[in-house]
Amino acid sequence: MKRIAVFTSGGDSPGMNAAVRAAVRTALSNDITVAGIRYGYQGMIDNDFVEMEDHSVSNIIQRGGTILKSARSKDFREYEGRKKAIENLKADNIDAIVAIGGDGTFRGATELYQEFGLPVVGVPGTIDNDLSGTDETIGYDTAMNTAIDAIDKIRDTADAHERLFLVEVMGREAGFIALETGIATGAELILLPEAVSRVDDVRESLNEVFKVQRRSSLVIVAEGDETGGAIKLAENLKDDFEKYEMRVSVLGHIQRGGAPTSRDRVLASRLGSAAVQALVDGHSSIMVGVVNNKLKLTPMKNTWSKKKSLNYELLELAKVLS
Amino acid sequence: MKRIAVFTSGGDSPGMNAAVRAAVRTALSNDITVAGIRYGYQGMIDNDFVEMEDHSVSNIIQRGGTILKSARSKDFREYEGRKKAIENLKADNIDAIVAIGGDGTFRGATELYQEFGLPVVGVPGTIDNDLSGTDETIGYDTAMNTAIDAIDKIRDTADAHERLFLVEVMGREAGFIALETGIATGAELILLPEAVSRVDDVRESLNEVFKVQRRSSLVIVAEGDETGGAIKLAENLKDDFEKYEMRVSVLGHIQRGGAPTSRDRVLASRLGSAAVQALVDGHSSIMVGVVNNKLKLTPMKNTWSKKKSLNYELLELAKVLS
Amino acid sequence: MKRIAVFTSGGDSPGMNAAVRAAVRTALSNDITVAGIRYGYQGMIDNDFVEMEDHSVSNIIQRGGTILKSARSKDFREYEGRKKAIENLKADNIDAIVAIGGDGTFRGATELYQEFGLPVVGVPGTIDNDLSGTDETIGYDTAMNTAIDAIDKIRDTADAHERLFLVEVMGREAGFIALETGIATGAELILLPEAVSRVDDVRESLNEVFKVQRRSSLVIVAEGDETGGAIKLAENLKDDFEKYEMRVSVLGHIQRGGAPTSRDRVLASRLGSAAVQALVDGHSSIMVGVVNNKLKLTPMKNTWSKKKSLNYELLELAKVLS
Amino acid sequence: MKRIAVFTSGGDSPGMNAAVRAAVRTALSNDITVAGIRYGYQGMIDNDFVEMEDHSVSNIIQRGGTILKSARSKDFREYEGRKKAIENLKADNIDAIVAIGGDGTFRGATELYQEFGLPVVGVPGTIDNDLSGTDETIGYDTAMNTAIDAIDKIRDTADAHERLFLVEVMGREAGFIALETGIATGAELILLPEAVSRVDDVRESLNEVFKVQRRSSLVIVAEGDETGGAIKLAENLKDDFEKYEMRVSVLGHIQRGGAPTSRDRVLASRLGSAAVQALVDGHSSIMVGVVNNKLKLTPMKNTWSKKKSLNYELLELAKVLS
Repeated sequence: MKRIAVFTSGGDSPGMNAAVRAAVRTALSNDITVAGIRYGYQGMIDNDFVEMEDHSVSNIIQRGGTILKSARSKDFREYEGRKKAIENLKADNIDAIVAIGGDGTFRGATELYQEFGLPVVGVPGTIDNDLSGTDETIGYDTAMNTAIDAIDKIRDTADAHERLFLVEVMGREAGFIALETGIATGAELILLPEAVSRVDDVRESLNEVFKVQRRSSLVIVAEGDETGGAIKLAENLKDDFEKYEMRVSVLGHIQRGGAPTSRDRVLASRLGSAAVQALVDGHSSIMVGVVNNKLKLTPMKNTWSKKKSLNYELLELAKVLS
Repeated sequence: MKRIAVFTSGGDSPGMNAAVRAAVRTALSNDITVAGIRYGYQGMIDNDFVEMEDHSVSNIIQRGGTILKSARSKDFREYEGRKKAIENLKADNIDAIVAIGGDGTFRGATELYQEFGLPVVGVPGTIDNDLSGTDETIGYDTAMNTAIDAIDKIRDTADAHERLFLVEVMGREAGFIALETGIATGAELILLPEAVSRVDDVRESLNEVFKVQRRSSLVIVAEGDETGGAIKLAENLKDDFEKYEMRVSVLGHIQRGGAPTSRDRVLASRLGSAAVQALVDGHSSIMVGVVNNKLKLTPMKNTWSKKKSLNYELLELAKVLS
Repeated sequence: MKRIAVFTSGGDSPGMNAAVRAAVRTALSNDITVAGIRYGYQGMIDNDFVEMEDHSVSNIIQRGGTILKSARSKDFREYEGRKKAIENLKADNIDAIVAIGGDGTFRGATELYQEFGLPVVGVPGTIDNDLSGTDETIGYDTAMNTAIDAIDKIRDTADAHERLFLVEVMGREAGFIALETGIATGAELILLPEAVSRVDDVRESLNEVFKVQRRSSLVIVAEGDETGGAIKLAENLKDDFEKYEMRVSVLGHIQRGGAPTSRDRVLASRLGSAAVQALVDGHSSIMVGVVNNKLKLTPMKNTWSKKKSLNYELLELAKVLS
Repeated sequence: MKRIAVFTSGGDSPGMNAAVRAAVRTALSNDITVAGIRYGYQGMIDNDFVEMEDHSVSNIIQRGGTILKSARSKDFREYEGRKKAIENLKADNIDAIVAIGGDGTFRGATELYQEFGLPVVGVPGTIDNDLSGTDETIGYDTAMNTAIDAIDKIRDTADAHERLFLVEVMGREAGFIALETGIATGAELILLPEAVSRVDDVRESLNEVFKVQRRSSLVIVAEGDETGGAIKLAENLKDDFEKYEMRVSVLGHIQRGGAPTSRDRVLASRLGSAAVQALVDGHSSIMVGVVNNKLKLTPMKNTWSKKKSLNYELLELAKVLS
């Protein structure tokens, strides 16, 4: 293997740059040259390649976003688009690719592998932590810390006014962020896609809370919860909690940005490096992950086909502690 | 004067605790005892008073929210309510009050002064900075820093995807926060209550921006802007900017919380102390402020009846620099 | 079991309050009353107990430091002191204790168990992460994030001036903080107690770095490293790197404070709760920990007698990536 | 005027990049081209110039440090060096320069003006705030917020242990940072270059503090204070306060880095733009500043020859409030 390409795709997550840096430097130290593909699969089709040198990845380990940019690509969904992508990779003498992203990214990489035999290795970069084969994905730890920092601020004003606050955090399919941030902020209720949430139950639980004493109250809602998210839930509850000045806050895209935490930088450094090593070792169509603090390779397909389980023990804990 | 009361009212703002601390300690050092009233005017009516000692205000200078709590009070809008409030103050031998809050707070204090002759001094505590008689209100500097910290994170993801982001910041009547955060984050457009914003003009400006090159773009919208806020604006623009994956973020209540900045702590310390000094000096029905870095007393009524002007020079600057 | 005591001892670490909260609320939900002992073992001797109710631990999950205070105790090192401590516990009808701290704390608890048969369970609270029986200690994750946040700032000024910076992080016996922060900040060199560091080797390595190109350079030094820490190392190197304006920064006590990260809050919540559950289940003289994301009980003595190993793979990684 | 040069020099300060951005964009919008000089006066001598386009300053407003780098220059102290610098500027057709830095930077610029008639305008960029002609310098507000954030963390651990902490902040000649951070963190004592501090007085004051009650205590020391700084002061005090576990923390270079605050970004944007405007208007040998929130031009020499005064009212306030 003499030359590889690296790219980021799908929703960006903090730590992607650290993963790019690690992949580039590990490749260079193995005498493998590296092309950076800008704008993900779309850039692969548009031939938007840049040469990655040692200095190209200097001083980026601490930056949010992705220096290689990201994009959605309709063209890539068609066989013609993928064929064009492969031709561009071949023309640049690229032997294999490192794909940094989530399940959409890995599905695309798998198609390139299956249709054209291109060696591909995936690096899990998504704040949602919803990929099997790794205990944590790159960006998840940062997103949670961004969320609790915001929720701590909301707590300040909630406490000042004895208010009921509904805060929506990211997580369309999975409640990982909601669950841990709920515990970390002492939320009275945590509503998740994985657990059935009915508005009636929420109402009852909150009535219990307010029966005890005059106080503020915090409900964390994953965007994919069955109640429909914080805004819709608030509409359904407002008549019952009129005197508590219910407020809604949708944290939104701030959760994707910011300097990555120490944990995300270390994880991204390990995985970016391991991805290149896996290619050198002849692996393909796998994702590198860290399970029980050890590097682990998982067949790419399993990362999205197997549902990753929440730690339900934490749900019980949240009830005892709030 | 032997005894005063201190309270916070209206929307809380970071630095209120520093102001409470300064008022309490300045009073105590003048051999004046202090009652803290919890929950603002409602607590005045409900007789929710706590004795403030030196240690009551230890270790609070860095905390967001307000240890004295805040609330809205319907009862206080009625004469009967205010009379009850005055009776409670009298019963506790309170000679004067320090009111920390915004224009609503000051209107209430003015009524107590006019109807019952109670000496009152106001301390400007609101993130909106919309009070005349002081260059800055307590909490304004912190709110802006919270906002730019959030917007920097949004920029990360906007840049990664070349997206158009509409970010709504607080400011129902005034564009102070929007204007300075817009400059501080390099926004392409800043929409304010003070300047006429039409959706057509916004559309045209953004078309100019995107004509130049493929790039991300950031629009800061004050919640009180004529376009109706970020969510409504996005609905009106979405057909025209389909390919830019327009995203909306409403920063909301996080702007009220958090540890106050150095500037807000110093301002709050100066003003909380000056308020007590003003009472000692025999002043009443005034607000203490800082104008051109000097303490200044302003008749309470003027603080809301005179419209405070934006620095329009900055609006021009924003256009040159973005 | 009807009544337990909880205390913090030794160097404080972020998340201790979250652990106290979890222990108190778990006990109360099991109909066990809780005494909080202030100032650790010294308070046990001085009978400095406070009753812990549900509201005693409200709104503390996000606070650094420890609301129960900490202290060193010379008296406790004598048998007479420990006997007095036990008498006070008995007089207050305390059946068992939850000790939150590091190896010094656990040694003390073990003595109470061995000499007087008092049931004790330990919760690992120390930023140094140097206890066996748990993958991470409470406070470790926060300390690292505080460190990298500071080092990122130092990088800004180092890069502006092309300087050589020696930054000392905490870790007298163990290099956990130094190793991970070194990787997370892209340090050129990481000096640890676990690896032999000679000044000559450091000099040679840095000469390699500067041979490549004009640039800034960062060396992370654990305080317990053999070179004697950053200040002493700088003195030994200064003649050789005169033109690089070498600078030293000792991060020091800022690493102990601050709001705990999401990870530390969740860990502390799990362990504080598990400690009470372990007592309920009849365990004693054990520490609760999390290993491979599962709760685990470890005999208290093993927590300090068995040396916890660094992940040496990361040391290799650091060399490739810097 | 058709072409100008911009550079940063001396100690870097947060907001310098925002000033560079504003100068570049204001020049370009006036059809003036811009050379960026790297490494300050040394780069002027070494001919290290880069062309500054609109995109050269994209996405830098939030970054600490300086993209143009900074350096000390021995060569520039000699006439020969300065002559070489001027020749390089002439060769690149540069008509005038914008110098961003502190008093050392301005002395250099003044020599170029006096010896060679080069039009120069200064922008005050230094965290120390010790330049006359502007209420605040760029970086001062950020440095204070970095300092109080660190000191808040130290407070956590100080409070946990009832310790006496001596914290040294930057300020060799001036106590601006020490004074405001001292008030903002509720320090028991503030030691400044501008006020005579004798170790005996410090000892006496601290004895007063500790006489009152068992508690933690915080002393802020400017590095240029007469007691010799925090480390030396600690040595002189340690015998008297043995039982308080005195600790020292030198905040050091972290105060120079980090993302600039909203205030520093807005100030830098105004001043960077005003500097170019001043050159367009034909001014020279002046510094642009903001006094009482209005732009103001000051003869460059006055910025360092006139001593800028502390707000001594704040020193009194600190005593009342701590």
